[in-house]
Amino acid sequence: MALSHDKGRINFATWKPTHFVWSLHGKVATITLNRPERKNPLTFESYAELRDLFRELQYADAVKAVVITGSGGNFCSGGDVHEIIGPLVRMQEAGDMQGLLDFTRMTGDVVKAMRACPQPIISAIDGVCAGAGAILAMASDLRLGTPSSKVAFLFARVGLAGADMGACNILPRIIGAGRAAELFYTGRAMDGVEAERWGFYNRLCTSDAVLTEAQALAAQIADGPTFAHAMTKRCIHQEWSMSVDDAVEAEAQAQAICMQTKDFGRAYYAFAEKKKPIFAGN
Amino acid sequence: MALSHDKGRINFATWKPTHFVWSLHGKVATITLNRPERKNPLTFESYAELRDLFRELQYADAVKAVVITGSGGNFCSGGDVHEIIGPLVRMQEAGDMQGLLDFTRMTGDVVKAMRACPQPIISAIDGVCAGAGAILAMASDLRLGTPSSKVAFLFARVGLAGADMGACNILPRIIGAGRAAELFYTGRAMDGVEAERWGFYNRLCTSDAVLTEAQALAAQIADGPTFAHAMTKRCIHQEWSMSVDDAVEAEAQAQAICMQTKDFGRAYYAFAEKKKPIFAGN
Amino acid sequence: MALSHDKGRINFATWKPTHFVWSLHGKVATITLNRPERKNPLTFESYAELRDLFRELQYADAVKAVVITGSGGNFCSGGDVHEIIGPLVRMQEAGDMQGLLDFTRMTGDVVKAMRACPQPIISAIDGVCAGAGAILAMASDLRLGTPSSKVAFLFARVGLAGADMGACNILPRIIGAGRAAELFYTGRAMDGVEAERWGFYNRLCTSDAVLTEAQALAAQIADGPTFAHAMTKRCIHQEWSMSVDDAVEAEAQAQAICMQTKDFGRAYYAFAEKKKPIFAGN
Repeated sequence: MALSHDKGRINFATWKPTHFVWSLHGKVATITLNRPERKNPLTFESYAELRDLFRELQYADAVKAVVITGSGGNFCSGGDVHEIIGPLVRMQEAGDMQGLLDFTRMTGDVVKAMRACPQPIISAIDGVCAGAGAILAMASDLRLGTPSSKVAFLFARVGLAGADMGACNILPRIIGAGRAAELFYTGRAMDGVEAERWGFYNRLCTSDAVLTEAQALAAQIADGPTFAHAMTKRCIHQEWSMSVDDAVEAEAQAQAICMQTKDFGRAYYAFAEKKKPIFAGN
Repeated sequence: MALSHDKGRINFATWKPTHFVWSLHGKVATITLNRPERKNPLTFESYAELRDLFRELQYADAVKAVVITGSGGNFCSGGDVHEIIGPLVRMQEAGDMQGLLDFTRMTGDVVKAMRACPQPIISAIDGVCAGAGAILAMASDLRLGTPSSKVAFLFARVGLAGADMGACNILPRIIGAGRAAELFYTGRAMDGVEAERWGFYNRLCTSDAVLTEAQALAAQIADGPTFAHAMTKRCIHQEWSMSVDDAVEAEAQAQAICMQTKDFGRAYYAFAEKKKPIFAGN
Repeated sequence: MALSHDKGRINFATWKPTHFVWSLHGKVATITLNRPERKNPLTFESYAELRDLFRELQYADAVKAVVITGSGGNFCSGGDVHEIIGPLVRMQEAGDMQGLLDFTRMTGDVVKAMRACPQPIISAIDGVCAGAGAILAMASDLRLGTPSSKVAFLFARVGLAGADMGACNILPRIIGAGRAAELFYTGRAMDGVEAERWGFYNRLCTSDAVLTEAQALAAQIADGPTFAHAMTKRCIHQEWSMSVDDAVEAEAQAQAICMQTKDFGRAYYAFAEKKKPIFAGN
């Protein structure tokens, strides 16, 4: 996927980010939010590093799927009260609209970069998943969670709108407009059973298994036709607000491109030989 | 929310509408459709009064949430057969296209005004909820209903299209496109259990409790950060057909505005003092 | 619906297509994919004939609803491996992009024609429903299925994108964005119970009954106000990516047109006489 001048910008096999843990096993990367004593909150710096990471992943040929999880039994408690909310309140008191807008645009850029990178992203969710944590889960492609997890779009509880990082646009498409509205206006947590029933979680797992199941699902996807997967992700994104007829034409073009990949032939010849295809992502 | 020249247009504390019952307790208004002997049908006049009310609510600073219900164990039976359907049929027979279009635009304006007013609207639904009644429920932000209630988009049964007041656009976003299509083509009632399972109802309640639960939920929402709630409602509306990237930018602006409200600081300082925040909607 | 110069282009009462079975009982047509020894795969020729059929149905005044089914206990196994996939792989190897794009546009035109024809389409699904078969089901208005049926958007398993014939645009609106993404990236089958629970199937039926129930539902719909039904179908299509306010205006116009049909008066006068209305579709 990367042009020659973009190759090797980061060596993801050995990369050590500053604000979270990164690991790469085979073609599957795992991002672990890792401040367990505070339930893995985000800071200005970790937001920025996540944004930069997902932008770089556009050029990361060796990474074919990404798992996001949190350490210590929780996913993410959202923007840190002391390191984010406090400074934002002080910006307000100083009348610093530019600073506030810079912040909301930076956080929004995390979502834009997650939706723009070619790798499917799977969140593995246990415990607390709140505020910006719920947004990271929502902006993923797939979500596995536990029955005891709590996903809270709790912005109303901190005096803010549910309109955060695209939530009013994206969440209704996942769980329906009526259920999303309730979560926004009340700020209440969606429990794990609801999350699966409403289509937010793709599957319920035990706390012990949720990360390994997410990584196994990621590995299965990464072993698939990843050029085509990237086109699927791109089409879901670009057709989000298209008419049916325009989307059909967009997919006629997209699928014709995919039919030019070797993976398409690999699947056909494997089938003819009654073998399982081995895809190479090209 | 109101400019000085718009304040006090109506005193909602003492207002007495002509075609339904209005009550205001604290910041929560309740609209009660009140022709129980006919299951609370709508007439030309009550449509128009609802339209005017929801338009006025844009300037009603003292009203922070609205509940819609019906008296006598039913929500609303829709357009009255004798007072609406009959006159419309006579307009048809007279070739009065202007009159028919004036009617459908007036009813559509009720939905537009419900989506445009800043207050979250909660429908409390028992018994019959049919035709325009189902539309009022659909156009609300949240819906509580009873197991024995019946929500019928019954337009096909009176010879009309499911395309009424925006239903073909809105209902699929709440319950999914396949289920909405079935209700439109058959005109059959959706029962209460289906309505909750499909995401039309946010919750099932007993007939005795549905109104009080709706009012309690409305009071909880009205005690929240209502400036931010209004922004949530506006963003859900304006981002309905936006691309993800445009919606993320729209919310970066919207949330930066909300971060300039005092409610944002109130929540932060209350948290620091381990107290519950007291929001003022500004 | 047909202009005089379009009437009688095909006599659907006696029509015998080449690549599937056609039958017309009353106002309900049934299309039976009929190569049971191969689980009813599609070929270049059957795709083209389906496209032409659905385009012709725009002028078929006598056909008011359509059922699609497959013979021998399966719905459709998708594009035939030997008759479609093989030739496409050889086009790829010959660098024939035009040929590939001609193919993807032809298949897309089937979906466009299914969404554009005025008749509601009901799929009756048992057994295998895979690839292009799953697309035919998805592009229908309603779907009845059996618990043992398997609906697989299996494009990833043949090296292709889920972006096929509009699936990335349409399927998320039926079952939600998270569930659709899982089916696209894994290629796994959705079982019958999931399909009903997620809103893909409108109803679960036994294998013995699924076709007769689909035909009975089609007959019920065909006995309804079919002019209005066609407007419902058109509005669902045209309002797919509209704002709420634009959709409300579109429906004000659409419903005013329907109020000019005789079926509207028929329903009113039947009600006044406490009779069941007899609709004529005009």
